[in-house]
Amino acid sequence: MEKNQINLPIDELPTKWYNIIPDLPEPLPPPKEPETGPSRMEFLGKTMVHECLKQEMSNERWIPIPEEIRELYIQAGRPRPLYRAKRLEKYLRLKKVRLYYKREDLSPTGSHKVNTALAQAHYAAKEGKTTLVTETGAGQWGSALSYAAALMGIKCVIFWVRSVYNWKTDRRTLMKLMGAEVYASPSKETNIGKTLLAKDLNHQGSLGIAISEGLEYAETREGSVYCLGSVLNHVLIHQSIIGLEAIKQFEIADDSPDLIIGCLGGGSNFGGIALPFAGEVLQKKRQCEFLAAQSEAAPNLVKGEYRYDFGDVAEHTPLLKMYTLGHKTEMVPIKADGLRYHAAAPLISVLRHHNIVKAVAYPADEKAIFEAARIFLQTEGWLAAPESSYAIRAGIDEALKAEKAGEEKVICMNISGHGFLDLQAYKEKLSIG
Amino acid sequence: MEKNQINLPIDELPTKWYNIIPDLPEPLPPPKEPETGPSRMEFLGKTMVHECLKQEMSNERWIPIPEEIRELYIQAGRPRPLYRAKRLEKYLRLKKVRLYYKREDLSPTGSHKVNTALAQAHYAAKEGKTTLVTETGAGQWGSALSYAAALMGIKCVIFWVRSVYNWKTDRRTLMKLMGAEVYASPSKETNIGKTLLAKDLNHQGSLGIAISEGLEYAETREGSVYCLGSVLNHVLIHQSIIGLEAIKQFEIADDSPDLIIGCLGGGSNFGGIALPFAGEVLQKKRQCEFLAAQSEAAPNLVKGEYRYDFGDVAEHTPLLKMYTLGHKTEMVPIKADGLRYHAAAPLISVLRHHNIVKAVAYPADEKAIFEAARIFLQTEGWLAAPESSYAIRAGIDEALKAEKAGEEKVICMNISGHGFLDLQAYKEKLSIG
Repeated sequence: MEKNQINLPIDELPTKWYNIIPDLPEPLPPPKEPETGPSRMEFLGKTMVHECLKQEMSNERWIPIPEEIRELYIQAGRPRPLYRAKRLEKYLRLKKVRLYYKREDLSPTGSHKVNTALAQAHYAAKEGKTTLVTETGAGQWGSALSYAAALMGIKCVIFWVRSVYNWKTDRRTLMKLMGAEVYASPSKETNIGKTLLAKDLNHQGSLGIAISEGLEYAETREGSVYCLGSVLNHVLIHQSIIGLEAIKQFEIADDSPDLIIGCLGGGSNFGGIALPFAGEVLQKKRQCEFLAAQSEAAPNLVKGEYRYDFGDVAEHTPLLKMYTLGHKTEMVPIKADGLRYHAAAPLISVLRHHNIVKAVAYPADEKAIFEAARIFLQTEGWLAAPESSYAIRAGIDEALKAEKAGEEKVICMNISGHGFLDLQAYKEKLSIG
Repeated sequence: MEKNQINLPIDELPTKWYNIIPDLPEPLPPPKEPETGPSRMEFLGKTMVHECLKQEMSNERWIPIPEEIRELYIQAGRPRPLYRAKRLEKYLRLKKVRLYYKREDLSPTGSHKVNTALAQAHYAAKEGKTTLVTETGAGQWGSALSYAAALMGIKCVIFWVRSVYNWKTDRRTLMKLMGAEVYASPSKETNIGKTLLAKDLNHQGSLGIAISEGLEYAETREGSVYCLGSVLNHVLIHQSIIGLEAIKQFEIADDSPDLIIGCLGGGSNFGGIALPFAGEVLQKKRQCEFLAAQSEAAPNLVKGEYRYDFGDVAEHTPLLKMYTLGHKTEMVPIKADGLRYHAAAPLISVLRHHNIVKAVAYPADEKAIFEAARIFLQTEGWLAAPESSYAIRAGIDEALKAEKAGEEKVICMNISGHGFLDLQAYKEKLSIG
């Protein structure tokens, strides 16, 4: 009998996260202060969770996962299955190529973001904090942090760009159901918000403004900390649980991937699945390639420059060395909103610089992306998020390429989230009546 | 460490479904022909999958699950976890009561309906059929059958009451994405539909009309069979996979339920979790009680009469002995649309008649239901379907009752589906801004 689902027993849930820093081919270029303005490092030091800041700077290869966070991971459904995509293979008539996928879509809020949200919420509560503050764009990060705060029994405050807040009613309902306070940004909760609203009561906001509001809120309200959902080292460390599970699952399957594929905006799901494997490559323990699937709307690894840039449009962060399109670059709207970010995480960027990570960008009309998602749904039966569908597209393309070349190849795609809250996008992009 | 998730290894996926008929306290009253009109049995014999019809009449206690269906179950994510609701227990301050829940919400289309959809699709394909036909009300059954047909590579045709078809755009998109042909009923695909449309081009339809259209389609198009998603014996047999897994999972947890709770409209998820346990009760192998959670909009087990009635408003089915409110009864709309059915499955009804199954009905305003769902979300972290939230409400109520009485009690709730496509209902019922 075909058993396409490969489960890791709960007892085998990893006990440590992986930090790739000691295994990098060069020391990670450190964050820098910009030449003008106040100290960004000091500011972040004041508003962030201390343990996260410590992990951000850590050179330790293995970081123990506290038992309480492992409990939360298990509550959230971890370990998550790895699947052999036998049905998709058959549809694509693959003979030499084997396809696998990892199931982060089984997450309670619909994406991998909970992996770091739970860790951050746990550490914040342990440090006596009572409120998690963040901004959200597409809404996945806001949902995940709302969830984590609810499970820890602490407050969550979310600043959400008004133009998105107004139409994404289902995501908004989900966050509020979890108990989060969700504000359309600019809001009356902060001075910066009040100033902007005084000029225009119906101000549509921007991600930069939402971040500024969140940081002001976190700085001025007692017990508050600011949480970040991507790009930074500690986020990618928490996400390493994905790849660490997958390594064990490939052992169970008695197989080994030659190519790992994930979609990439800032890099948190890609880093999550790829870095534990990449670490073993750098330690000469395995051979494997890595491909980031991007949108031409935000092809930071494909067309960006490797240089110091701000992590946000409002210039609140220190300068980070990243493949960047420029932090003020305007990007066209796409349905896979989570991929619209100007730069790739420093940890991914340094691997790109050393040609360990490769990247491909797909046209911003996303036709090929949603078509791949439909094929995946009709063969494997799972509805992927638009973002994750970039990984599926690239997986299909790479599989067909290898098959055509007569190459034996094992490919693993990361399904970072589900698409139940994205059916409108499917309807529009595939012209479904 | 608390491990609230109890997994069954894939190798332990049951190999047989359970049929309670040989263990019933009296022979199941057989279906009967009505006094007027054509033979319903003959008609069903012609339009249904033969293997399903055979199972419908079977007196065998154990029915082997074909390897191909077990493969499909594994593809669909089975076995599904059982959870100990430690966080909910803590919130409710339970000391003597232990709460568990079974996770059918992890299904690819969002409900337990796939358990029978996959079986029916497999048998239909094996019998050389090329098209599955059905009607759908709330949309869960239509989604599940679309999914199963896609995985078997056969066609699926769905007649959907126009008034619902028009506004449930996300469910409609999901079915069409799976490749199903979905028609607003009345449609131009059938004579009955054409006749009705000739009178009123904008006819809003009804479930009775949709069933009539489906049956006409199945009868007149070659290679077509009609599939049913609830009430009938073979459907409950397929759903027994839920309870059979749960029995093994309770063994792993070294615990045993005193009370099993499921929501009940027609009875397929309730029967799925309850009947394997009820069989052991009838065989004097265990002690356990069973509670069906209903809506006052359709309190068939609470206020219905135990008598022969049609299974559908259009009188296409044979007469079945059921607790019924009358097949022409009008029911007020509720958000848990899947619970709006006039009668309970014959297998559940006979157990109700012998007082083995008990029932409770909650007010049709559903305030208490959605409040329970919110508590569940904020403690356990999972978004339940409105229907499943009736089981959660009853679980909370029974737990508090037992705790107050100082009773030690183990309660298991079945979470029949997720609520990602029901966030509008949450928003409305809980007045979320």
